[in-house]
Amino acid sequence: MAVGGENGSTEPLSASVVGGSGFTGGELLRLLDGHPNFEIAQATSRSAENKTIGSVHPNLRGRTLRFSDPTDLESVDVLFAATPHGVSMERIDAFEDAADTVVDLSADFRLNTKEQYEQWYDGHSASEYLEKSVYALPERYREELPGADLIASGGCNATATILGLGPLFDSELLSGDEQIVVDVKVGSSEGGAGGGAASSHPERSGIVRPYAPTSHRHEAEIEQEFGISVSFTVHAVDMIRGASATCHVFPNGPVSKKDLWGAYRDSYAEEPFMRIASGGGGVYRYPEPKAVAGTNYGDVGFELDPANKRIVVFSAIDNMMKGSAGQAVHAANVALGLEETAGLEFQGLHPVGAP
Amino acid sequence: MAVGGENGSTEPLSASVVGGSGFTGGELLRLLDGHPNFEIAQATSRSAENKTIGSVHPNLRGRTLRFSDPTDLESVDVLFAATPHGVSMERIDAFEDAADTVVDLSADFRLNTKEQYEQWYDGHSASEYLEKSVYALPERYREELPGADLIASGGCNATATILGLGPLFDSELLSGDEQIVVDVKVGSSEGGAGGGAASSHPERSGIVRPYAPTSHRHEAEIEQEFGISVSFTVHAVDMIRGASATCHVFPNGPVSKKDLWGAYRDSYAEEPFMRIASGGGGVYRYPEPKAVAGTNYGDVGFELDPANKRIVVFSAIDNMMKGSAGQAVHAANVALGLEETAGLEFQGLHPVGAP
Amino acid sequence: MAVGGENGSTEPLSASVVGGSGFTGGELLRLLDGHPNFEIAQATSRSAENKTIGSVHPNLRGRTLRFSDPTDLESVDVLFAATPHGVSMERIDAFEDAADTVVDLSADFRLNTKEQYEQWYDGHSASEYLEKSVYALPERYREELPGADLIASGGCNATATILGLGPLFDSELLSGDEQIVVDVKVGSSEGGAGGGAASSHPERSGIVRPYAPTSHRHEAEIEQEFGISVSFTVHAVDMIRGASATCHVFPNGPVSKKDLWGAYRDSYAEEPFMRIASGGGGVYRYPEPKAVAGTNYGDVGFELDPANKRIVVFSAIDNMMKGSAGQAVHAANVALGLEETAGLEFQGLHPVGAP
Amino acid sequence: MAVGGENGSTEPLSASVVGGSGFTGGELLRLLDGHPNFEIAQATSRSAENKTIGSVHPNLRGRTLRFSDPTDLESVDVLFAATPHGVSMERIDAFEDAADTVVDLSADFRLNTKEQYEQWYDGHSASEYLEKSVYALPERYREELPGADLIASGGCNATATILGLGPLFDSELLSGDEQIVVDVKVGSSEGGAGGGAASSHPERSGIVRPYAPTSHRHEAEIEQEFGISVSFTVHAVDMIRGASATCHVFPNGPVSKKDLWGAYRDSYAEEPFMRIASGGGGVYRYPEPKAVAGTNYGDVGFELDPANKRIVVFSAIDNMMKGSAGQAVHAANVALGLEETAGLEFQGLHPVGAP
Repeated sequence: MAVGGENGSTEPLSASVVGGSGFTGGELLRLLDGHPNFEIAQATSRSAENKTIGSVHPNLRGRTLRFSDPTDLESVDVLFAATPHGVSMERIDAFEDAADTVVDLSADFRLNTKEQYEQWYDGHSASEYLEKSVYALPERYREELPGADLIASGGCNATATILGLGPLFDSELLSGDEQIVVDVKVGSSEGGAGGGAASSHPERSGIVRPYAPTSHRHEAEIEQEFGISVSFTVHAVDMIRGASATCHVFPNGPVSKKDLWGAYRDSYAEEPFMRIASGGGGVYRYPEPKAVAGTNYGDVGFELDPANKRIVVFSAIDNMMKGSAGQAVHAANVALGLEETAGLEFQGLHPVGAP
Repeated sequence: MAVGGENGSTEPLSASVVGGSGFTGGELLRLLDGHPNFEIAQATSRSAENKTIGSVHPNLRGRTLRFSDPTDLESVDVLFAATPHGVSMERIDAFEDAADTVVDLSADFRLNTKEQYEQWYDGHSASEYLEKSVYALPERYREELPGADLIASGGCNATATILGLGPLFDSELLSGDEQIVVDVKVGSSEGGAGGGAASSHPERSGIVRPYAPTSHRHEAEIEQEFGISVSFTVHAVDMIRGASATCHVFPNGPVSKKDLWGAYRDSYAEEPFMRIASGGGGVYRYPEPKAVAGTNYGDVGFELDPANKRIVVFSAIDNMMKGSAGQAVHAANVALGLEETAGLEFQGLHPVGAP
Repeated sequence: MAVGGENGSTEPLSASVVGGSGFTGGELLRLLDGHPNFEIAQATSRSAENKTIGSVHPNLRGRTLRFSDPTDLESVDVLFAATPHGVSMERIDAFEDAADTVVDLSADFRLNTKEQYEQWYDGHSASEYLEKSVYALPERYREELPGADLIASGGCNATATILGLGPLFDSELLSGDEQIVVDVKVGSSEGGAGGGAASSHPERSGIVRPYAPTSHRHEAEIEQEFGISVSFTVHAVDMIRGASATCHVFPNGPVSKKDLWGAYRDSYAEEPFMRIASGGGGVYRYPEPKAVAGTNYGDVGFELDPANKRIVVFSAIDNMMKGSAGQAVHAANVALGLEETAGLEFQGLHPVGAP
Repeated sequence: MAVGGENGSTEPLSASVVGGSGFTGGELLRLLDGHPNFEIAQATSRSAENKTIGSVHPNLRGRTLRFSDPTDLESVDVLFAATPHGVSMERIDAFEDAADTVVDLSADFRLNTKEQYEQWYDGHSASEYLEKSVYALPERYREELPGADLIASGGCNATATILGLGPLFDSELLSGDEQIVVDVKVGSSEGGAGGGAASSHPERSGIVRPYAPTSHRHEAEIEQEFGISVSFTVHAVDMIRGASATCHVFPNGPVSKKDLWGAYRDSYAEEPFMRIASGGGGVYRYPEPKAVAGTNYGDVGFELDPANKRIVVFSAIDNMMKGSAGQAVHAANVALGLEETAGLEFQGLHPVGAP
């Protein structure tokens, strides 16, 4: 495997995107297009075969690479799969044949066991890969990623929650039997490019809509991560990119603001993509999706509610970046020994509209 | 007191709006303008004195009544006060002199005791009125409203929460010592007409912003109503009208879907402005602010989360209507023996944008 | 024909809505539901047959009338057809058999001749009705409407333009050979309930998108009305309801501001739904869709640009109301001798989001 | 003057931003922060003095440079002034003393003569600089920029219009006496960070609002560029970033689609930031602000309207980038012999909300 050095001076690695005409596929193409260490060798799409990537994704207007048939894969260093849930498990052998490293953005390889998977999804046709795959979040699996054959990029709502709660568990402020409510607000890009009546602009604009009151599948990833079931509810709101998780946590014993600062600093002070936004002045004093739109940042913050013995944790990401394609590229950077932030340097905009 | 009959055939009652150039004042003017039993005798505004109400509120374009000096009150049947918190307590004697019935939309008279008030707000200069005032929500105080001298319209976020949780307490599915998390999402009209940097369009658009992580003052009204402290967090989202309260409730014992339907039907089946939207098909199968925008409806719904022994209750209102001016007019209708729905018949729009 | 009196004291007229599950059909149901002189006898829908109107249109939640088969029409006083273009011409004989008065909201009967129609649309299968039909806008056809058998509700963009330019032609400030550019901005409800990729929330939000650079079919109605071809371009913007037409007019001779005020006052001073908003103070000093959202108002305003010898006319409507269902009900009111404003009294909201 | 080479290998140039807490100032800071050839030496702000740039601009969260007193300027290679109109003319001597190259983003130095300036603005206190300054747009002044002492970044609406119309004049399809109507739609960031009632979220959301019916000052720049007065009208719409100019042009003689393609290709085929989007398939087949949000691209497109002998030209930019800070950095790159696209590589996002 030809691995680029930290200074990006070696030959670029070849990359392909399977399922490149969807939203996360397009985001991968954008990131790889601007990445100093990757060269896009192939982008596939069944629905957009032979169209240029620039005619499908307006931000890539002028880019002339054409989508090719997904069944005819080129040999590459890294293959990113951005196909609907259930497709990757059918094609995983072909993916593995085509690439040294496979990064899958679907839910197919996020859980560790067939039992877990089948509790939340339908049957799994390639469950032998489940235990081999590494969950993509470098903030939690940095040690396991280098050299991984199969990386599973996390669910966006799970990612926001895991990043928000992680320091509480890592610091042992929580022991694993607490009451935790996670109230998530997400944008319309989570629904994908497909659309449907509920996603049409007249019906989807201006909403605060309960779309997963209970039993959202991303609960499975959170439970796998922390060994605890959380009370999870997802609302659709009027933005396009963005997932905001508000975690209402009831610790067993007393927790101080200083404990919280300690926990979050311990976990994130050295992380290139994690920022703590917790009180202080100004308009943007807590995490919010607008401040991370288009970036790979995860912003987290917290407050104490002594009257109710509650910790409130806020976590905001761009669901298509830190919650999907950005996480995937970040993990690939780590897996391949590249500069962690390579290709993910965009700082975001101010002001900016619905992210 | 000249009281209109249910058929609206008697002489109209005179009404005044103190503080008519603000958002809730304008909403009162709109409602009274279209009300079969009221005639607007006076609208006051310090900042817009001598301007026509139609030049301040574009929906009233062409209405030529002019705002007058708030210190020179006419004698009327009903006075609606839509002034900032703290003003009404200073002027309450003048209001009571001017009108048989005073409906106050501020926080000044919502709590029952000086102690409660001063725990959440600053000092109270007319606390003798606190125990006399009646909380406006007819769904909870219909018996106390007729003949009331002073009616206090509830806080919008408290109203959404109280309407959502009420049936659980009334039916004794909850006993008062449960864990309850209320996660609220509100629109920008809650900030009033004043504005400020955080409310400017470039900074306020497209947000999911924690604006009251803990200790929001509306908690006081909820605690007063149910005798229980709730864990309350408010987020600002990209809409103008609307408050959506998601209540995560952990009952002590088992609760079935049938219990829930029973509780909500018992409380709301006969209520003219309460609707149950709970599952079923279609896009709008749970309560959402968009479906009640401009109306006096309160939509409530619920789901069970057996894995976490949780009830999730959704409650959606238009914060300026059911959460403020509509609630006030509804209460006045009840207090004065008018048709309850008079002046509040607007059904809302479909489709419609950010409410 | 049983005609209601001006005071609404006589027996209600029966009305049906063919195509009631679409956006304009839903708007008709809302208006008829609140109309003092009409009773909804039937609502048909092929796609939503047997569903309640309240399950399809969330603002009518709780209304239990069920959609019926559109081929089985009941006999009514008035039939409103809100079907896609081309359907009414196929069914017009059945419509006329079922009702004394037919109001069609499609483009099928707006033009006077088969030649005109076929220049802009495809072939016409019932062209014998073209010369009989009356264009719905009471501001221009009040005299022709009473007793009309077939009324054609105008296109929304054409309506905004015709209301904006009408006074200039009526007052003879224009003679019919002037250069006129009309630049229109419209909301997403114009696309109907169907949706499609371009209408999905992620692609449709936040746009200023040229969707009809030239040759929009509504030009035909404008040309028919004034005998002049206008340069017409339509943009989709981020709202749901609303059409805003900016007319850039180059008169042959000098025109003063006083001439303009005279022309618009002559045309609209007595019109119940037309308002002149032209300069003056405040935020809403020109017409804008937000100020008429949900209402049947047409707001018009104007400015002179002496440097370029140009008149700029602004015209704003709610495309689903004045531009469609409201216009239809207004025309029916006039046709049947009812109070003109009956059922159309809603004043709109302030503040309010994307209309 | 120490000039960086095209490969960016030499020592970075020092840059300062005067007025760095406003919107365009923040955009400059973002661009310079990521620019391979610049190092931010100083950012000044009167209102935010001593605050970190990251606490004012949430996308720069974590950046610890503090705003300093604007009267105490450091010596730098390039000074960017992002102060309100009228400030730069008062301070131009100090700016010129502090820096080899001054790039001014206000209107103070865009026009060539005192007469022009005073026709559209108030008096000019440093008019001797007017003839020396170079208009920033490299697409039109690439030859004049290298070595310029004072560069004036164009007005956003003027920039969109000039980029849209330029090829028609350059190719001599227009001769300069044609009728041209320019109908512009802009986002709320044009109003700056200051705000005010009309800019508050409840009043500014969801609008199509005529805010400059006639006599917008950017007309002056267009007239200076092409020697022709255009009929110019600006509307505020619901986005934050973005200016979209629709130019309705009436050529004196016949013009074919081929002529248009030729003209636009001749002007823009080699331009790194200009893209032609004109028909073809897909949702984004014409220019729209959403497709250029956050980028320095200018997208232009066109259609012919033979029936009205009209050319319709669409031009879309991000008003804060190509229309302001991006244009300024682009011009500085050209002026200093750097790679033209340095620091301006961001491709934009898909999908993305209101830009």
